[in-house]
Amino acid sequence: MAASLRLWRLKPSRILRCSVASGFSSGATAGSGQQPQLEKLTSTRQQDGIRHVILNNPKKRNALSLSMLKCLRNDILHDIESQALRVIIISAEGPAFSAGHDLKELSSEQDTKHHIEVFETCAEVMTLLQKLPVPVIAKVNGLATAAGCQLVASCDIAVASEKSRFATPGVNIGLFCSTPAVAVGRALSRKVALEMLFTGEPISAHDALLHGLLSRVVPEDKLEEETMKIAHKICETSRSVVALGKATFYKQMALDLDAAYRMTSQVMVDNLTLKDGQEGIEAFIQKRKPTWSHSVNTACK
Amino acid sequence: MAASLRLWRLKPSRILRCSVASGFSSGATAGSGQQPQLEKLTSTRQQDGIRHVILNNPKKRNALSLSMLKCLRNDILHDIESQALRVIIISAEGPAFSAGHDLKELSSEQDTKHHIEVFETCAEVMTLLQKLPVPVIAKVNGLATAAGCQLVASCDIAVASEKSRFATPGVNIGLFCSTPAVAVGRALSRKVALEMLFTGEPISAHDALLHGLLSRVVPEDKLEEETMKIAHKICETSRSVVALGKATFYKQMALDLDAAYRMTSQVMVDNLTLKDGQEGIEAFIQKRKPTWSHSVNTACK
Amino acid sequence: MAASLRLWRLKPSRILRCSVASGFSSGATAGSGQQPQLEKLTSTRQQDGIRHVILNNPKKRNALSLSMLKCLRNDILHDIESQALRVIIISAEGPAFSAGHDLKELSSEQDTKHHIEVFETCAEVMTLLQKLPVPVIAKVNGLATAAGCQLVASCDIAVASEKSRFATPGVNIGLFCSTPAVAVGRALSRKVALEMLFTGEPISAHDALLHGLLSRVVPEDKLEEETMKIAHKICETSRSVVALGKATFYKQMALDLDAAYRMTSQVMVDNLTLKDGQEGIEAFIQKRKPTWSHSVNTACK
Repeated sequence: MAASLRLWRLKPSRILRCSVASGFSSGATAGSGQQPQLEKLTSTRQQDGIRHVILNNPKKRNALSLSMLKCLRNDILHDIESQALRVIIISAEGPAFSAGHDLKELSSEQDTKHHIEVFETCAEVMTLLQKLPVPVIAKVNGLATAAGCQLVASCDIAVASEKSRFATPGVNIGLFCSTPAVAVGRALSRKVALEMLFTGEPISAHDALLHGLLSRVVPEDKLEEETMKIAHKICETSRSVVALGKATFYKQMALDLDAAYRMTSQVMVDNLTLKDGQEGIEAFIQKRKPTWSHSVNTACK
Repeated sequence: MAASLRLWRLKPSRILRCSVASGFSSGATAGSGQQPQLEKLTSTRQQDGIRHVILNNPKKRNALSLSMLKCLRNDILHDIESQALRVIIISAEGPAFSAGHDLKELSSEQDTKHHIEVFETCAEVMTLLQKLPVPVIAKVNGLATAAGCQLVASCDIAVASEKSRFATPGVNIGLFCSTPAVAVGRALSRKVALEMLFTGEPISAHDALLHGLLSRVVPEDKLEEETMKIAHKICETSRSVVALGKATFYKQMALDLDAAYRMTSQVMVDNLTLKDGQEGIEAFIQKRKPTWSHSVNTACK
Repeated sequence: MAASLRLWRLKPSRILRCSVASGFSSGATAGSGQQPQLEKLTSTRQQDGIRHVILNNPKKRNALSLSMLKCLRNDILHDIESQALRVIIISAEGPAFSAGHDLKELSSEQDTKHHIEVFETCAEVMTLLQKLPVPVIAKVNGLATAAGCQLVASCDIAVASEKSRFATPGVNIGLFCSTPAVAVGRALSRKVALEMLFTGEPISAHDALLHGLLSRVVPEDKLEEETMKIAHKICETSRSVVALGKATFYKQMALDLDAAYRMTSQVMVDNLTLKDGQEGIEAFIQKRKPTWSHSVNTACK
């Protein structure tokens, strides 16, 4: 197997690290076993290849507390290599998508060690999204602020209802949104990103689309349908081909043009040796529907 | 002559390499001489400094087969250092701009060596466009997919009719558009690029403009006129100044801000020593029209 | 104090270098002292934390002559570390925002040494804007061309009236806008930037917003009000927090994603140790308005 085909395999250590946390489908908030359990601040369901991960702490405006971040990481990484998983949709319960960090965790009552853990876990979850072998869609219906806005900016695809709004208001409480700015500054045009960061004022979904934060804005009553349309489209494709494509995309974007073409040209050749690479082209030439194996193995000739 | 003034000179090896292929203006599809000739899949005409290179295989939806890519390279590089050439417009015959690679060339009937040649030639043509001493305009009137979309994204300027559409649908046939993604990912906002790559769904010309792929969208019946307006404007300028400016643009964009300013500040000084640099400023001060030499030589003082 | 908290401190040498030039608030055009004084081509006023720096040579369409660039540098750097300064607004007197370099300074009557000084001073002023500890807003009401367009692209935030237009027309006079292209190419989408650079044609304020040059476009009669709204919002925040945030933003944008998160995660922790970092979060939790010290010192525990 060519080297590039291993690109999207997550290191097992990364997965094991989370597998001791709360069970994937468990909604229990109190652990009954010996092991301490995470409070379950998300809910999840998975059907026909589509995993829904739902921020589910509306009373706290879905704050990305350390517990919430760990639940999110856990739900995302659960059985991530399963062929039954094809796409992840991150959404939220209640009127706010997410209000960002839980400020009580960042007060002087907590020590610096705790602050460090919060920001490192947050950065880990945000960068993890791009390393997953399946696409991640943010489905936003409400206000996404600070690390909540960062979460939207960190997903591969982002769909929002027209009423949604986006802000990085940390400056108002004396904590500049420097980590959200990593994702926001890379998604939005620089002028708009800086106006948001310096004023803390929200922008509309329409402006968020115009300036690069979103891929699609739809009426609220179409949000579910339009997001699912994208998810279903992804489910019709080969898992192994999408995984290779996603890993390659982020790698090549960090290279200069010539290096990017050298790398991706080799990936195209490798992609053609995949079972599903051969099947897809044969089916196209034979004018039939392809039957995907989703296998990471190469085709026998 | 200052170092920066040599920036835009293409290495002769690059040009010679193609000069054995089919003659520039030949429309013959069968070679009559001893040397094997390329099938002529493009048509070209040049007038008043404007070279039209037209993808001309509408029955195959202007697929970027290896032959087509070689024709394109040949037509682009033909007499590229001639002062009579000021701008290149790439357009297409028929309802599709280009459907991308010829999938028959990528099936298992062809060996890996052939696959490698296809992708390497494609990458060479795409990156070549930025290295030419004259601007390249894509003029799109129809659907541009996969490597066809990559071609649009790789031109300096891109004008499209309102009905045009753009897609990277490789994922549907098990061959992720990883090489098109190099150009598409650098032109479009990341969220839109990834939605296109993961779903294979087309975007409209309007959205392509909004998200960075195009510089201009016009009604179909204005496409010729508006594209020619840009081309004629370029023909009014100095060839050597444009060549220096284009080469410098792509070089500085790969540098950090301070390095980019150091490099371009020197280029500005060198530009002023060019014959046409001095002529332009003198004409402006004397309130007369400049007379360009198009020469790469520096002015005598 | 953590290392990152020193990020935004400008080196004193940079400030001293300009302090021998014309007095900040002096409108005098002729020096009466022993020291040669700069002709005063800008006007300034500062009130309630907001410094207005106004290009004030409308007869010359606010050309960025060497004198103008030095005035601009001087006005910007004047007492830059004062807590009384919170935001700088750069605007212009007369119908043109700025016509770019003074071409008489770039003719062959001036020697190369002079040309070099012009471009180096220009690059210094443009990059300086991002290094200041306070946000800089361009307020544009008219045509901004060449280095004038570069100035807009180099500010953190840019607000323009609907009638404003933007161009890089150097190519028309044989001097390609290679230094403006550094800023313009990083703000606008590449296709639009190159069409501007190759044709010299202006784009509308609307298109400038759409493609990344501006953060906001407003009717002319709302320009003052809307710009001041942004400035006042900034004045409500902590100076030290904004300074840390601005310096961090530009630093992290030049890093790869993982390095950017490592750097900014540490900055967030440091931000929390600032007096105003603690005050902001305490005020939020206690549901009261924060009282900023604007101090760069850390909080005592």
